[in-house]
Parts: sequence; C-alpha cells; structure tokens
Amino acid sequence: MQSSVSLSSAAAAAPFGGIKKSATSSFPVKSLYSPTPSTLNDPSVMAAPKWAQKTITLPPQKRGCHLITPKILKEIGGDLSGFKCGLANLFLQHTSASLTINENYDSDVRADTETFLNRVVPEGRSAPWKHTIEGPDDMPAHIKSSMFGCALTIPITDGQLNMGTWQGIWLCEHRDAPTARKVVVTLNGI
Amino acid sequence: MQSSVSLSSAAAAAPFGGIKKSATSSFPVKSLYSPTPSTLNDPSVMAAPKWAQKTITLPPQKRGCHLITPKILKEIGGDLSGFKCGLANLFLQHTSASLTINENYDSDVRADTETFLNRVVPEGRSAPWKHTIEGPDDMPAHIKSSMFGCALTIPITDGQLNMGTWQGIWLCEHRDAPTARKVVVTLNGI
Amino acid sequence: MQSSVSLSSAAAAAPFGGIKKSATSSFPVKSLYSPTPSTLNDPSVMAAPKWAQKTITLPPQKRGCHLITPKILKEIGGDLSGFKCGLANLFLQHTSASLTINENYDSDVRADTETFLNRVVPEGRSAPWKHTIEGPDDMPAHIKSSMFGCALTIPITDGQLNMGTWQGIWLCEHRDAPTARKVVVTLNGI
Repeated sequence: MQSSVSLSSAAAAAPFGGIKKSATSSFPVKSLYSPTPSTLNDPSVMAAPKWAQKTITLPPQKRGCHLITPKILKEIGGDLSGFKCGLANLFLQHTSASLTINENYDSDVRADTETFLNRVVPEGRSAPWKHTIEGPDDMPAHIKSSMFGCALTIPITDGQLNMGTWQGIWLCEHRDAPTARKVVVTLNGI
Repeated sequence: MQSSVSLSSAAAAAPFGGIKKSATSSFPVKSLYSPTPSTLNDPSVMAAPKWAQKTITLPPQKRGCHLITPKILKEIGGDLSGFKCGLANLFLQHTSASLTINENYDSDVRADTETFLNRVVPEGRSAPWKHTIEGPDDMPAHIKSSMFGCALTIPITDGQLNMGTWQGIWLCEHRDAPTARKVVVTLNGI
Repeated sequence: MQSSVSLSSAAAAAPFGGIKKSATSSFPVKSLYSPTPSTLNDPSVMAAPKWAQKTITLPPQKRGCHLITPKILKEIGGDLSGFKCGLANLFLQHTSASLTINENYDSDVRADTETFLNRVVPEGRSAPWKHTIEGPDDMPAHIKSSMFGCALTIPITDGQLNMGTWQGIWLCEHRDAPTARKVVVTLNGI
C-alpha cells in the first residue's frame, strides 16, 4: 500500500440555512427499484454516502496480461464490505500499461491477448514510429494503453465487486522492463 | 429485469457528534458553475444524494453490434427522471461481448463496425490462439471485449442521459451463439 | 463554456422522519483507509457530498491527437479545488472523435498514435465500408471512437486530478473537417 488519502463524507445538516426545512419535506429520499421488504427495514440504507481513496502499488510484472483481482481485493476487500451499493474506480497512473476486465480462468486467454496486441501494433524495424528514444517497445506500449484504457469503474453490491462469474481484473504490462505500477482506487457509495 | 438491489442514501445528520456544528459552518455547500437564479431557487438542488442499482437482462442477440438505448431507457427511464444531476454506470457482466457508445442512426455503421472487428482480430485457421476449447469465435470474442470495454459511465442531466444527438448505447455480441447478457446499472446523483 | 448546469447536493437532515436517530447512531460515518491524525481533525472530511456539471466546448482541431489537459483544467480547475476526494467524469458527446489518457510530453507520441489509427482502420478505396455517405473518413472515425472511447473517469485527490506524472488528457479528432467538440464534465466528491 502507498499513501492513503481520505475517507468519508457526512452531509452538512443545514447547508443553505433557512431552507433546510422545506428541502427536507419537499425531497424525501426515494427508494428506487422497489427494495424488498427486507431492505426497506435494513438500516444500512440510511448510511451516509462514503468516499474512500487509496493508492495501491502493484509489484513489477513481466510484459503480458496478468490477473490482479486477488491482489486488488486483498487491498480493498475489507473496505468494500462497508458498502451496500456503490462504484469502485480503479485508475492506473501510467501510459505504457493498461487495466481491462476479461476472463479470469484460463491463462491462455491472457497469453493470446498479449499475442494479439503484439500483432496489431507494429514494433521494431517494421514500425513507423517517430517516438523511439525510450526503446522499441515504448511507442507500442503507449498505443496499447489507449486501446485497452487505464481505468475501470465497477459496481459494488452488498459489499463486493459485482462482476460476472468469469470476469477478472487484468493489469496488462506493455513494457519489456518490469516496473511497479500504481493504481488509485476510489470507492463511493452507501 | 433481474434481481434488483438497493436504493437511496441519506446522510446522517451528526456523523461525528460534537463537531457537527463547526463542520456545517465551515463547509457550507458551494454552488459550483454559477447556477442561474432559477436553479438557486430550485429546491431540487437540495435533494439528498441517491443511489440506485439494478441488473437488466438483455435478450439473446446475434453476433454483431446492436443499438440498445431504447431497451435501457425502458428499464431505467423512470428512475432517471428523479435525478437532476448525476452519473449512470452500465456494467456488462461478460467477457465475450462489449458495451460501447456510437452512432444511433444508420445501421450500416453497426454492420461496418462488426466487419472491422472481424478483420482486425484473426479467427479460424489463420488465428494463432492457444485458447480454442470453447470454439473458434471465443478467443476473438475475448479480445474484442477488451478492445471496446464492458462498461460505460454516462452523465445524467435534468433526468436524462446526457448523450450527444447522434450517440446511442450499443451491445456488441462477439459470440456466434446468442445468449442473454446481464448489465448492472448503477445510478448516482442528486 | 456552454450552458452550465447544477451543482451541489446537501443531504436532507431527516429523510425517513422517525428513524433518523437510529440511523445516525447505528451507522456513523466510518473513516476508511486509516486517516492520519491530521485528516481526522480536518473539518473538510465533514463536507457534504457535492455535484457539479458543466459542458465545455473545445475549439475545432485538425485530425489527430491533441493534448487538452490545460484547456480542461482552465475550465474546471477552480471547482476541482473544492474537492478533497472524488471523481471527475469527462464525456465527449460525439461519435467521430474520442477521449483518451496518454503521454503528455512528447508530441511524437500523439503523431504516432494517429499513424497507428490510420493503419489499423482501413480508409478510402481499400475499405470495405457500407456507410460512406458522410465521406471516406466518417466510418473510420466511428470505429476509432469506439476503440479509444468517448469518456474518462479520473480520481480527484486534494483538489486536483490525480493522474500520473506523464499522463495527460487527449482529444482525438478522427474527422478531416475540424469541428467544435462538446465535453460534459461531471464532478462528484467531498
């Protein structure tokens, strides 16, 4: 774990002074999507909106696609459990790696994805790049980073990341030289 | 509609006991972006933050790109109308399909996009994939899913998805065999 | 700047009438990620959740990738400073341009990325597109828009976009004819 920042929010009780009362009466909190009787009686739905943010450092990985769901859950799982409903944003602070969601079971899928990326983005003598001062793998890495993206937003439901059965979080390392990678995780919900 | 979860948040009035008063006075809610006189007087800006979450099941679609904006709005449009300002997150729980935003008018654009995907990702005898046990279309489907992504976050403004005139939400089905697909929709806003 | 909408939220003090008290006592706001003593005493963590939303119009740019971080910060920097922790969503309302995060230093990286996009997406006589009525660059532009995406969600930390040292926000213009482009920026946090 890296530096960890900030936390939770609590709404001010009387934000615009005199109009507090009418606001309260005019805009009661609505329950959307027909909560079941059990959730209507569940005091957790009254919890204040919470924010949490943390920077995770992932250890250096070799070029290729890596399943990092366990590592991410180890870092944030305890905090996730405090959210009934919300969103988790994972933001990779780099331009030569990427975050994506894909199959979590067969490692061949990750190997094949790396094969694809290397086929679709030219590298080495056949490549037309002007930006070569950081090595032949650098410009392809930048392109791959924009193809897959550096950020994910995942729903939180009942204290867990609400991904599908076969979904996992991948870190795709596009450089030859492994380096540690930082991910800013932001949790928001109730 | 699938199982539906959760609802709305209401901030606790005095979260850290004794410091409530100073918090209220030190951090009044600021009106950002110069609200017009009409919004300043609009009690809706005083509404409590709300959360809503729901899983939508999209019926099986054939391989290709499909405009699903009407289906999504049919499922969430009523709830959207309760949000003055916010964000809608759509999260597809699958690794062989994708969600993207693109042109909502000419179906040729969707057909051409499918043509592109099939050109850029090798399939069949010419393909180098190791992961073939689920059929020749499976590994290409995984790659396409990461290329376009499985999630969208769209602004909500005045009770509607604030997309551009020509934007629509697409479900791209990358498998040959149509299957139902689940999308977790999370709404958050005021 | 375009029309600007809405603003901030203030939670109603007693949303479900009689149960206010138990809600408050049962669900105190938890401080996640071990705030340091200084943040525990920092009244900003008591601030109400805030929402801000604004439509920015970017001036017409020629086909290619453009660094727009300074322009974005000029428009929202003042408001960002009011957020201790949060998320910024940037949503491009167009289907023939894209937003991505990539290298912010060497303009060759942007030029090479444009070269890549033009290589991977066929255009002109060699292209198989059915959708040609808006010009030979239009269908390729739609495909590139889905490849890179039209939206970004970036963490806010201590009043700033918490991107990595080398990250910048790019607008990629995929049409030959420059046109103004609109971005809806939504800020949410405490």
